[in-house]
Amino acid sequence: MYADGEQSRMSTVEIEYCVPCGFLSRAEDVQHALLSTFGEQLDAVTLATGANGVFVVRVDDTVIFDKSEDEYDVDEIVRRVRDRL
Amino acid sequence: MYADGEQSRMSTVEIEYCVPCGFLSRAEDVQHALLSTFGEQLDAVTLATGANGVFVVRVDDTVIFDKSEDEYDVDEIVRRVRDRL
Repeated sequence: MYADGEQSRMSTVEIEYCVPCGFLSRAEDVQHALLSTFGEQLDAVTLATGANGVFVVRVDDTVIFDKSEDEYDVDEIVRRVRDRL
Repeated sequence: MYADGEQSRMSTVEIEYCVPCGFLSRAEDVQHALLSTFGEQLDAVTLATGANGVFVVRVDDTVIFDKSEDEYDVDEIVRRVRDRL
């Protein structure tokens, strides 16, 4: 559905980070990179609190980065988000 | 409903900010104050992109700060969020 309008729908990003691990500033860095790069191309970027070492980035509910599987790299996260816009 | 469990439900905050006005850093400041103060008491803080001068803070969909009506004061915003947790 909406194949032709796909480009114009705005995306939402969620960054879930472990609060007790002190991952807030890392989550803020990723959020800032995304919002300063894509601005209004994104509908919203959410910082969601979590625990147990979580650091996961989702675009419209699809995981595009998971600290437990991927090496942390802000530029790579920005590239992966761009691929989904 | 849930009168007894009211305290344990987590809240979501949304900060809608005007992208072309350059309000991103102000939105980030408010978000940082909220997440560093309340941590896991909040479920999530969302930065939502907007235009036309908007700068509005909502807690669970209730507006607690609107730049068009209130003077900008991070500490006051933190107090108003606390009152709703």
